[in-house]
Amino acid sequence: MPKTRYHAPSALLPGGWARDVLVTVGGDGLITSLACDTAPPPGAVRMPGAMLPGMANLHSHAFQRAMAGLGEEAARCGQDSFWTWRETMYRFLERLRPRDVAAVASQLYLEMLKAGYTAVGEFHYLHHQADGTPYDDPAEMSWRILEAAGRTGIAMTLLPVLYSCGGFGGRPPSPGQRRFVLDAEGYARLWETLRAGTAARLGIAPHSLRAVTREGLGEALAAVEGMDPDAPVHIHIAEQIREVEDCRTWSRARPVEWLLGHFPVDESWCLVHATHVTAGEIAAVARRGAVAGLCPTTEANLGDGMFPLSSFLASRGVFGIGSDSHVSTSPVEELRWLEYVQRLRRRRRCVVSAPDRRHAGEALWRAALEGGRRALAQPVGRLEAGCRADFIVLDPDHPSLAGRRDGRLVDSFIFAAGGSPVRDVVVGGRHVIAGGRHALEDGIAGEYRAALDRLLA
Amino acid sequence: MPKTRYHAPSALLPGGWARDVLVTVGGDGLITSLACDTAPPPGAVRMPGAMLPGMANLHSHAFQRAMAGLGEEAARCGQDSFWTWRETMYRFLERLRPRDVAAVASQLYLEMLKAGYTAVGEFHYLHHQADGTPYDDPAEMSWRILEAAGRTGIAMTLLPVLYSCGGFGGRPPSPGQRRFVLDAEGYARLWETLRAGTAARLGIAPHSLRAVTREGLGEALAAVEGMDPDAPVHIHIAEQIREVEDCRTWSRARPVEWLLGHFPVDESWCLVHATHVTAGEIAAVARRGAVAGLCPTTEANLGDGMFPLSSFLASRGVFGIGSDSHVSTSPVEELRWLEYVQRLRRRRRCVVSAPDRRHAGEALWRAALEGGRRALAQPVGRLEAGCRADFIVLDPDHPSLAGRRDGRLVDSFIFAAGGSPVRDVVVGGRHVIAGGRHALEDGIAGEYRAALDRLLA
Repeated sequence: MPKTRYHAPSALLPGGWARDVLVTVGGDGLITSLACDTAPPPGAVRMPGAMLPGMANLHSHAFQRAMAGLGEEAARCGQDSFWTWRETMYRFLERLRPRDVAAVASQLYLEMLKAGYTAVGEFHYLHHQADGTPYDDPAEMSWRILEAAGRTGIAMTLLPVLYSCGGFGGRPPSPGQRRFVLDAEGYARLWETLRAGTAARLGIAPHSLRAVTREGLGEALAAVEGMDPDAPVHIHIAEQIREVEDCRTWSRARPVEWLLGHFPVDESWCLVHATHVTAGEIAAVARRGAVAGLCPTTEANLGDGMFPLSSFLASRGVFGIGSDSHVSTSPVEELRWLEYVQRLRRRRRCVVSAPDRRHAGEALWRAALEGGRRALAQPVGRLEAGCRADFIVLDPDHPSLAGRRDGRLVDSFIFAAGGSPVRDVVVGGRHVIAGGRHALEDGIAGEYRAALDRLLA
Repeated sequence: MPKTRYHAPSALLPGGWARDVLVTVGGDGLITSLACDTAPPPGAVRMPGAMLPGMANLHSHAFQRAMAGLGEEAARCGQDSFWTWRETMYRFLERLRPRDVAAVASQLYLEMLKAGYTAVGEFHYLHHQADGTPYDDPAEMSWRILEAAGRTGIAMTLLPVLYSCGGFGGRPPSPGQRRFVLDAEGYARLWETLRAGTAARLGIAPHSLRAVTREGLGEALAAVEGMDPDAPVHIHIAEQIREVEDCRTWSRARPVEWLLGHFPVDESWCLVHATHVTAGEIAAVARRGAVAGLCPTTEANLGDGMFPLSSFLASRGVFGIGSDSHVSTSPVEELRWLEYVQRLRRRRRCVVSAPDRRHAGEALWRAALEGGRRALAQPVGRLEAGCRADFIVLDPDHPSLAGRRDGRLVDSFIFAAGGSPVRDVVVGGRHVIAGGRHALEDGIAGEYRAALDRLLA
């Protein structure tokens, strides 16, 4: 495959803003070289606006996009919570077939690309048929997820989920959870099957401490380590107060405390949510180098609580963002409100950017790039040689960006833009969104609507 | 002017959802009749999606749209606040000319319409030239604001601002405030001029207790009452802790407490922000029937703090929403995050909708319509005979709304839609947004960009 070249009037490089940037992409989708202050050579694709590294979405449950907005009916006065929402989700799952999952994931990934995400970590737990029987091919649902990623062009780290129990201490799963259940042995077989059938990056995702036993998690980690010692590990943790209380009842320790005490958590781990953590836990997570996988819009929608971001940053913790339940599919809304919730708590402005006095929008984008790179275990998040050519181009004609450049441009993108000013998106050198459109957009939306009409009939 | 008729397959009426709704609009823009279960007659404009009353934006400073995103640079480590942002705003003001204000307001109102706002309360304090000299026509800037409203078609309640002092106790204004300053007498003259020159609804807006004296406010209120006893009164209040402290130092009372004790605050008043209030103040505001003018995105951006919405609703308080500094121009983001911040505080879901167990999205939309109607003192916010024909139509083909109807549809509009699914907007019977576009869209955006290029050069 020949080399592709992209030229932009400005670009956000690891060291700062550069002008007239030429990015050369090899046949493998990696950046082979990057030159600044260079006129566009003949044959280069000329991008009209500023180029930024594309954002990694480190936490997605694709099928939940289809039910976004359906859990908003007040059922019990003042008592609706994460747990009542979870029941709604279990009911919704009953009707989902593999083809529905492919349709929903395709529409979702397309929306993500258009909003500025170039890679996604799919935390995939919907393994079996509605009655809990495995499909003839136990990886059936995983293939549908990978098919959606391939079709839309988003990069993926597939995180098949280990879900064995219904609560702490090995409690049996509930009927609502039967489509998720795998033991460590079945999990290792699924992983092996996927490894043989896809080139996509794979990780391991114990659902939560509620859903695994210590032994089961140890076995699954050992089995995967034998196949790929660098596989990233993702786990939901400490999202809800009740989860923390149940963990203490079971083990006398808080979830993060217990996990750090029993497993070799390090830079290859991503702790998703980690909402309810003590100062000691925060410092320990930062010290280990584990990524905090923050999902601001979902955590707000579910009423989880507020992650102590300032303390975590003060300990030099690394975070990334995920859209999780997909009530939003925009990295801008995640980052904007991650910062805003901290401002409301502390009654101060520019929380994330304060330590190094950067532009708040640019500081947020850069920080989440770094966490996403680590959590997805992919060479992304930086415009430099050796990294994959995953980037977005902002529309210079978008009114919200008028007159802005560099740091102010990204600030206005994050804090002031209505609609999406993302004009072009390139993943692995492939120009998947051009002029705000995806080539398969209308067909994918039509399939999605047809699936939804059936599911909600 | 002949009657216009609009037909939609469903509509949100005061009593609930209705099917096959025909709205007939008189030459004055008011709804003359409304029929349900009616086939579209010949000549009716057929709307393809659900019809909702358009949202009122009760608090806008139009010029601030141009600087949205420019105050995001961390200047002092951990010390950036509302007050440092205000200095940025004062500096930005120095270059603004009347034609810039017209260009910025036109672009802003167009964005508002496309996002679902049909009316705006413009809290207008930029009266004079850059050096503080009044324009030859002291209402020059006000005319530019009204021109932008007329051009885009958004309905307006113009709230010219009384700004006489730079702090509590009649402190003189600072140089940054010189473009705002009017005494009560000058204010009454401005009001009289506007009243003679426009048919737009006018209100009175003492900027804040910082910016007026008790005597000055009393005189201005009396003067306006003589011209229009029903004029609404809007005031910024208790937005910042420092403001509360300064007020106590000056008067021994908190701002809301002082205001309620010294002026006849009633249903015609809108207390903008009212962030820092005690339980007693909350109950008293609700009892008086004053509207709480909440501006969730601006209050978050500025790190103001969190309004105690649950307590206010429990006292049957009425609120509306405003986009204020215009870091967002979408009623969806205001309402979504108004609810989300409460969920994060209380670790519960469906806060606004809990008391009557409605759909959360529909409950938010309805509540803000009622507050907006009261605060703007216009016959809006309801689809019924006698109200103005101000409504929006949701795009039935938008993927985020696939398979949804009625309450679920509005929930997904508020909590799950990316982009704007607003397809059509009608204000006073005039079809201003059709198929997602405004007839003057490209020209207005071009003028806006030209103005910004000059302002930020």
